[in-house]
Amino acid sequence: MNALRGKENGTWKGLMTVMVTVREKVRFVETDMMGVVHHANYFRWFEMGRVEFLRQAGILLLDLMADGIVFPITEVSCQYRASARFDDYILIETIPQVLSKAKMEFTYRVIRERDGILLAEGYTQNVFTDTNGKIVRLSGRYYELLQAAQNKTESL
Amino acid sequence: MNALRGKENGTWKGLMTVMVTVREKVRFVETDMMGVVHHANYFRWFEMGRVEFLRQAGILLLDLMADGIVFPITEVSCQYRASARFDDYILIETIPQVLSKAKMEFTYRVIRERDGILLAEGYTQNVFTDTNGKIVRLSGRYYELLQAAQNKTESL
Amino acid sequence: MNALRGKENGTWKGLMTVMVTVREKVRFVETDMMGVVHHANYFRWFEMGRVEFLRQAGILLLDLMADGIVFPITEVSCQYRASARFDDYILIETIPQVLSKAKMEFTYRVIRERDGILLAEGYTQNVFTDTNGKIVRLSGRYYELLQAAQNKTESL
Amino acid sequence: MNALRGKENGTWKGLMTVMVTVREKVRFVETDMMGVVHHANYFRWFEMGRVEFLRQAGILLLDLMADGIVFPITEVSCQYRASARFDDYILIETIPQVLSKAKMEFTYRVIRERDGILLAEGYTQNVFTDTNGKIVRLSGRYYELLQAAQNKTESL
Repeated sequence: MNALRGKENGTWKGLMTVMVTVREKVRFVETDMMGVVHHANYFRWFEMGRVEFLRQAGILLLDLMADGIVFPITEVSCQYRASARFDDYILIETIPQVLSKAKMEFTYRVIRERDGILLAEGYTQNVFTDTNGKIVRLSGRYYELLQAAQNKTESL
Repeated sequence: MNALRGKENGTWKGLMTVMVTVREKVRFVETDMMGVVHHANYFRWFEMGRVEFLRQAGILLLDLMADGIVFPITEVSCQYRASARFDDYILIETIPQVLSKAKMEFTYRVIRERDGILLAEGYTQNVFTDTNGKIVRLSGRYYELLQAAQNKTESL
Repeated sequence: MNALRGKENGTWKGLMTVMVTVREKVRFVETDMMGVVHHANYFRWFEMGRVEFLRQAGILLLDLMADGIVFPITEVSCQYRASARFDDYILIETIPQVLSKAKMEFTYRVIRERDGILLAEGYTQNVFTDTNGKIVRLSGRYYELLQAAQNKTESL
Repeated sequence: MNALRGKENGTWKGLMTVMVTVREKVRFVETDMMGVVHHANYFRWFEMGRVEFLRQAGILLLDLMADGIVFPITEVSCQYRASARFDDYILIETIPQVLSKAKMEFTYRVIRERDGILLAEGYTQNVFTDTNGKIVRLSGRYYELLQAAQNKTESL
């Protein structure tokens, strides 16, 4: 569980304590010739965390897409602290920062399971668009699901 | 240029001498911790050769998809002779074997440019389906383009 | 469990019934614009199965590499039966075919968990080399581990 | 050509006008089921630009590695403006920001060739370490090569 102040008024009003953790094993193919995981792969891991966060909130990306909503990434960043290596078990922590009708912002922490070392911290921003790339605002049902996840957390 | 007998009667009737070559540079990200290119990447290279072969035949995959035709891979193989390494220039040779209304079969050779060493030989088979996965036969216009590419070659 | 006759005399002498299954969830990044998993990713999955098979046999690839042994892929193939899609849970079954001092051959089956549908069948061959690419024969200790895994299976 | 003030005193003292552009074609495999290039691939493109910038400066990553120097990524970011799509030709512009004995910082712009649209802007930071992960300062020869590239630019 994690506690961060919401970044935007009116979105996450209180302390956010919800966090979803995904456990993964580093794949051989994810390494490069420096012997460590190639840095681009962390964004694949963040995506897995984000997908799982939304799934636990009741939102399946396949449903969104079937409703004509896509969710392009508009901004990402990552700071690398230590190298993930082949066969490591990693924990991908996904923490919501902004969940509005217009966009989703998450931060992430990738932790090596065996010693708790922080490997990387990341950030992503998605917006919602229709399939022509036009910005849309998330429809009521999906937004309610996000709000419900938020409220459940805040009442803890 | 390459010469192979057609594998199927009624498809490529004579000697096939058409071949499309794509030149690429090995990317750092394509290596793995053994210090060489990860074997799965060769199928990305074969795909690039196949896309370019079809483009030169006048067939754009985006047009096919806009017409509701997709082209899933149904079979692949690869034999690896020597390792491609970071910074190598490679030549991806794409040779059509079967181009029918129902499927496309290609073979490939990946060659290291600086010394002509054969790195890998591959094979792929695509079929044509609609977006629901139902097998379709390639429509007249696209098939004529493939035939035209073939005839142009055979008249050489 | 699977039963296949060994392909080579003196390697797997009896029925092979050992099989290792890895469960994975299809990642968003593994899809392509046809809406299904890109075919090259199946070789990443086979690799995960192979790594886990060896791990259960007591052989860690990192140990092999620390001992100066690498294990380049020399041949692969895959037949695709149905498309894996985003969010599917898949089972990757890894079945040893040949485990000798000179090479490892495995076959694979990828199965969609929710309905048991066979998505793909594959084959890979690795050889053992030193870091200069020279073929080596697997040293006693590692080979004994493979043999032990085999014998444990055969005594079932 | 690009003009940016150096970010650090004593590193790039004047205007930097050097820029290296790499032209690439978007691969089918780089798309995802939203029909556009998956965002993680931009970091592969930035890497290609960075490799080419260093190559033009006379520095080959393979030489660095042979000398026991590796160059892990410590920070990245990317802002996505418009989607790259399959078959687009893209221009990857790589602009050095900081080239010191301790680290390299670059910014990038990815441009769609056919209409000059800016698709993405990025940033990466590498440090230099030995193969045990210990920070090192770039040796004289390599640093001179970077300085030479810089001076050649500044004298334009």
